[in-house]
Amino acid sequence: MSAVIGNAVIGQSGGPTAVINQTLVGVVQAALAAPEIERVYGAIHGIQGILDGNFMDFSQEDPDNLEVVAGTPSSALFSVRLKPNEDICRRIFERFRQLNVRYFFYIGGNDTAETTHLINEMAQAQGYDLRCFHCPKTIDNDLRVTDHCPGYASAAKWVAQAFMGDNLDNRSLGGIKINIVMGRDAGWLTAASVLARVFPDDGPHVVYVPEVDFSLERFCVDIEAVYRRLGRCVVAVSEGVHGPGGTPIIDLGEVDSHGNRQLSGSGALGDALADAVKQHLAQVMPDVKHRVRADTFGYLQRCFPGVVSDIDAQEARQVGFAAVQAALAGETPSGSVALRRLSAESGYAVETFITSLQSVAKETKCLPSEWISAEGNDMESEPFLAYLRPLVGALPAIGQLAMAPAALDEGSGSQGKGSG
Amino acid sequence: MSAVIGNAVIGQSGGPTAVINQTLVGVVQAALAAPEIERVYGAIHGIQGILDGNFMDFSQEDPDNLEVVAGTPSSALFSVRLKPNEDICRRIFERFRQLNVRYFFYIGGNDTAETTHLINEMAQAQGYDLRCFHCPKTIDNDLRVTDHCPGYASAAKWVAQAFMGDNLDNRSLGGIKINIVMGRDAGWLTAASVLARVFPDDGPHVVYVPEVDFSLERFCVDIEAVYRRLGRCVVAVSEGVHGPGGTPIIDLGEVDSHGNRQLSGSGALGDALADAVKQHLAQVMPDVKHRVRADTFGYLQRCFPGVVSDIDAQEARQVGFAAVQAALAGETPSGSVALRRLSAESGYAVETFITSLQSVAKETKCLPSEWISAEGNDMESEPFLAYLRPLVGALPAIGQLAMAPAALDEGSGSQGKGSG
Repeated sequence: MSAVIGNAVIGQSGGPTAVINQTLVGVVQAALAAPEIERVYGAIHGIQGILDGNFMDFSQEDPDNLEVVAGTPSSALFSVRLKPNEDICRRIFERFRQLNVRYFFYIGGNDTAETTHLINEMAQAQGYDLRCFHCPKTIDNDLRVTDHCPGYASAAKWVAQAFMGDNLDNRSLGGIKINIVMGRDAGWLTAASVLARVFPDDGPHVVYVPEVDFSLERFCVDIEAVYRRLGRCVVAVSEGVHGPGGTPIIDLGEVDSHGNRQLSGSGALGDALADAVKQHLAQVMPDVKHRVRADTFGYLQRCFPGVVSDIDAQEARQVGFAAVQAALAGETPSGSVALRRLSAESGYAVETFITSLQSVAKETKCLPSEWISAEGNDMESEPFLAYLRPLVGALPAIGQLAMAPAALDEGSGSQGKGSG
Repeated sequence: MSAVIGNAVIGQSGGPTAVINQTLVGVVQAALAAPEIERVYGAIHGIQGILDGNFMDFSQEDPDNLEVVAGTPSSALFSVRLKPNEDICRRIFERFRQLNVRYFFYIGGNDTAETTHLINEMAQAQGYDLRCFHCPKTIDNDLRVTDHCPGYASAAKWVAQAFMGDNLDNRSLGGIKINIVMGRDAGWLTAASVLARVFPDDGPHVVYVPEVDFSLERFCVDIEAVYRRLGRCVVAVSEGVHGPGGTPIIDLGEVDSHGNRQLSGSGALGDALADAVKQHLAQVMPDVKHRVRADTFGYLQRCFPGVVSDIDAQEARQVGFAAVQAALAGETPSGSVALRRLSAESGYAVETFITSLQSVAKETKCLPSEWISAEGNDMESEPFLAYLRPLVGALPAIGQLAMAPAALDEGSGSQGKGSG
């Protein structure tokens, strides 16, 4: 297929990540440099901007400022959560035809890949030559085909650091601490909490992901066992945990246009779990007062400035470049950029490749069941850590006192410091 | 007063901070170097360790590892929340006499200063020569006398970065976002959210601190006004906000041994405020669906590894050194280390000085009323930022696209990128 001459539209969709603008700037830089692409338009608020004719002109942006934007979390072009129906797709094409748009780059998760797929199918049905490419981003790491998703490693780093701090906090004062981590269908981000373990007995001590059916009874008993052993327990729970057949632990009501229930932006799940543990402990250990707390990490974990994985930032940029290269090469008129891990002799390395939009759209990729412990309440650390560590990179150094017991020679004033 | 020869006990008390071990290691290094101090004991879990005879020996610690511990958040000696009564104080003195303890260093907040004060008073009443020094730490920054408290600047940095990210997140998808920040009696940490403002229209757009009586009605109306203007609103709320006379917004029940109600470790306040705003908007703007979310920052903000102010770390160490110097000099047999800001010509500088334990114990220091906006829902930025900026130091760079509107010449393929 030969190159087609025309304009490009770039948009961002769905929830933000810490490195989503690295991908944006990768696409923009490659598109501005491509002779086949005449105008590089940014669709403001994704396909909503296309429908409204709300475009900005990337040739007017200062290149140095673009680099600052690349390092800034959260969709610089603004985002949207809108699932296009046939009517919306038709209006998008009318706009693309009017503006001679021949290249469409859409940065987002699996819902965004589905949107891109629908637009691509309509283009093909109408015989309109459109190069339609999806660039993956999601902190959930739940896109199929790709080894991992840009945005995940930075969120994983944040979650690991959060659990490092929370483990130290819990260690100093004791009790039970439950932390709710993002992840509706897949436990990738919750699983990253195990990176926080530095010393034996470090938390998280138990980890609950949506891949395993959740039992509130089992949860309380698991925590009780750790608490009896250590006097404390740090717990990682995916916001998406559910009982058999997807039955929710608690029902929060709100549903978005993709049919997804609201999970984040509320402390309700954490509070309900903390209450259940309190009640359980009051029954089985009635003589002591138990300190049970829950924090819901919420939106902080997805775009916290200053806690970014270097590899993630670099790969997110690379994915943007790769999308434009593929669109120009035109071997396939559409696709999604994916990452493949190379078994390099000298450490970690990846390459990009193109997979079909359908192969990424809609469905999610869960944690491999062999990475989850047999009891279903922890990760088998070795294979998962081998996967995750190179993505996240170095974490802050954590130290502990050796705490040699003092030899108490009562009333003595004669022995010096070096004698103990 | 001349130097007294004997052993030293060091303890940590209350909630942890990111730099509390800098102070610990400062005390330990200075005590180990002092000829007057024979043994340097760590009391494990603060005064609980003294009561139980649970001490560790700092001369056995590896000096390089001590430096790693200094950079690790949360009380390395473990903490305690225990208010000593007369009987407990008597038992502490028996122990101190038995072990020839002549130097006691206790790192903590105003409850800890009170504890140190009680122990000091009993020592004086019994004519026992004890040098009793309190080292301040608190993310709440609510100790009297001192310009600011070690631990505050790092937590303030975390809160600022959290609001930077959350403002960007809210900007990309719109709606209303409420964030609950730690601070029972004083709004220092919540106020630090205003550091997140980089561009006009950046959040937090409204800020609520416990120093101002809270009205739920007024809160909803304030948010509505910002939301109508910008289509979004980021809200900072102290966990300790309350109505006139201290009436709670919602009642959570649990009370600790200092009579403090549990505020953190639950999403209940945030959820209640989000529900109130949803109900208000459904009445006054019934035609649109409103996205209202709340996150409770919880324990993460007080000891997150990797998000630490350099100045804070440095000053926390300095405070530890100063406590030992003062104890050895013996100009006063007891006191609390405080920081005084110098009006240096070449930027920010502080010195330490000793203030009495009573001047720090128990009561809290609130935000100066002249730093709070007349409307009571924001900070007067200038004086507060001049106070806070040097403590927190550099924050991550945040960029925005210039977003020049595209000149849409429909159907054209003739104009290049540089012509717009």
